Amino acid sequence: MSEAPLDEFGLIARYFAPLAAAAPGALGLTDDGALIDPEPGRQLVVTTDTMVAGVHFLPDDPPDQVGRKLLRVNLSDLGAMGAKPLFYTLNTAFGPNVDTAWIAGFAAGLQADQALFGIDLIGGDTVAMPGPTTLTVTAIGSVARGCALKRRDARVGDAVYVTGTIGDGALGLAVLRGELDGLAESSRAALAERYRLPRPRFALGMQLVGLAHAAIDVSDGLIADLGHICETSGLGAHVEAGRIPLSPGAQQALILDPSRMESIVGGGDDYELLFTAPESCAAQIEERARACDIPVTAIGRMTAGSGVTVVDNDGRPLASRVSGYRHFQ
Amino acid sequence: MSEAPLDEFGLIARYFAPLAAAAPGALGLTDDGALIDPEPGRQLVVTTDTMVAGVHFLPDDPPDQVGRKLLRVNLSDLGAMGAKPLFYTLNTAFGPNVDTAWIAGFAAGLQADQALFGIDLIGGDTVAMPGPTTLTVTAIGSVARGCALKRRDARVGDAVYVTGTIGDGALGLAVLRGELDGLAESSRAALAERYRLPRPRFALGMQLVGLAHAAIDVSDGLIADLGHICETSGLGAHVEAGRIPLSPGAQQALILDPSRMESIVGGGDDYELLFTAPESCAAQIEERARACDIPVTAIGRMTAGSGVTVVDNDGRPLASRVSGYRHFQ
Repeated sequence: MSEAPLDEFGLIARYFAPLAAAAPGALGLTDDGALIDPEPGRQLVVTTDTMVAGVHFLPDDPPDQVGRKLLRVNLSDLGAMGAKPLFYTLNTAFGPNVDTAWIAGFAAGLQADQALFGIDLIGGDTVAMPGPTTLTVTAIGSVARGCALKRRDARVGDAVYVTGTIGDGALGLAVLRGELDGLAESSRAALAERYRLPRPRFALGMQLVGLAHAAIDVSDGLIADLGHICETSGLGAHVEAGRIPLSPGAQQALILDPSRMESIVGGGDDYELLFTAPESCAAQIEERARACDIPVTAIGRMTAGSGVTVVDNDGRPLASRVSGYRHFQ
Repeated sequence: MSEAPLDEFGLIARYFAPLAAAAPGALGLTDDGALIDPEPGRQLVVTTDTMVAGVHFLPDDPPDQVGRKLLRVNLSDLGAMGAKPLFYTLNTAFGPNVDTAWIAGFAAGLQADQALFGIDLIGGDTVAMPGPTTLTVTAIGSVARGCALKRRDARVGDAVYVTGTIGDGALGLAVLRGELDGLAESSRAALAERYRLPRPRFALGMQLVGLAHAAIDVSDGLIADLGHICETSGLGAHVEAGRIPLSPGAQQALILDPSRMESIVGGGDDYELLFTAPESCAAQIEERARACDIPVTAIGRMTAGSGVTVVDNDGRPLASRVSGYRHFQ
């Protein structure tokens, strides 16, 4: 079935306006801006992430998963602030290889995750681009005034927690690049899925308001992101490698090649929550995590000083410094 | 002077964090999101625009002007909603040709316009990109609850107004492409300046709340944008070509080549306000426009029916339809 190509207004009307149908403030995506009615007593939280084809996702990734990942990395940021998701805007610069089938799949992925996570599209911009497809979501959530979780509020003696398992994002990317071929097929598939489809942890993030002192999501890598908490809080952190929660696939990868520990603690794209909280809150945290069905693990402690130290089971430092992913290096 | 290249955190700290210094909610651009305290009784207005090198600006445009244009096209959208600018987020995907000198110039342009227009950076994302530099601003403003100007609220009999002069954006682009070489050098420079540096009209937009029925900014072209008001309002519009305000450069261009009228009414990038208001508000509108030092001109009237009709001085239709710029055509 061939049909006339759609211009930007046609694309917006067909694929994106349905994503905004439940939000009256979106004005049907036909106006110069969108309207948000703030809830009394709450602050808005704004976060934004850009993904570029070939950099943040693979050009042959299924388009629905690209859409879902784009939304989820932003939902992950809202979670790290303790915020409830409300709305998002979407900027799409589609490269020459993108056709309407790709856009339809992309929009279907967004639609599925909107329903799953309770967030609506309210605005955006759609342009043609003579280069790799470049996608931006700006997500807006809300949090009780003065209660947002920040990176800078960790205190000495806080326990350091992570949700889920660590390292699967980086190992999943390795699998998709054809590495780790000694792994069982089921593990390879599970790791690739973790890279393609992060699980935003905002349901727990919202529950950590009032309990956690500091929080961040693991996007640059465990050590780099814990390093961000250390820097902004003016503290150090001590992590026991043996307590870092690993998926079955990551455990197998580590048996095959122990040097993969570096990419487990140094790689990014896990989108798990990393947070610090006083020892006295341990029972409450475990209870709320169970209620959300999100596993949490204490992996270390905030210390006076600076920098992140990771020690093995014998207490020996694992590496002086593993830095996370940085653009422009 | 050579120095070590900056990674993304270094770029953010050096060039973008200073732009966020006056906004406590930006958290120094060191957290997962930014915080906004909504003002009681007001709605937030969110708008976003993406610009791609080679599509929305020329790769050799001065970087400070690229920064200013990026901010101004968004401020123009806020103006078309009647909103007061508050904050913006910035997503930069810098291509391989961008160096720190370019980024420094770009940031200096943003800084200059922040001071001029009273808006602060609160967040963003900075990535490396193996293609043309792609820039997104998402601007947030506020408007008294229920008072935002929309496209859909025009009424039959409303006068149609524009601010400033029309067509300079498209003619300026033509000049920058080496066309219109019969024009005086001063006119060429003035038109090019209009393309590179739009003048957002939100100072008047804010004053039109309660007076204007419908508003939009002229970004796709006069006829296309008036067409958007017609479509969303379910009306038509009648425009007298002879009343469309033209700059001296546009007047000269039209004398040299009368067919340029098509790009004057059909071209985009003017970023003037186009609005409709009842006849009874004419005196108040002129008074507020004078107070803002922004010229306004009545160019036509909203009618029953559909579509935009432009007539010449003898009342003959100028063109059945000139469509504006559309991506993906």
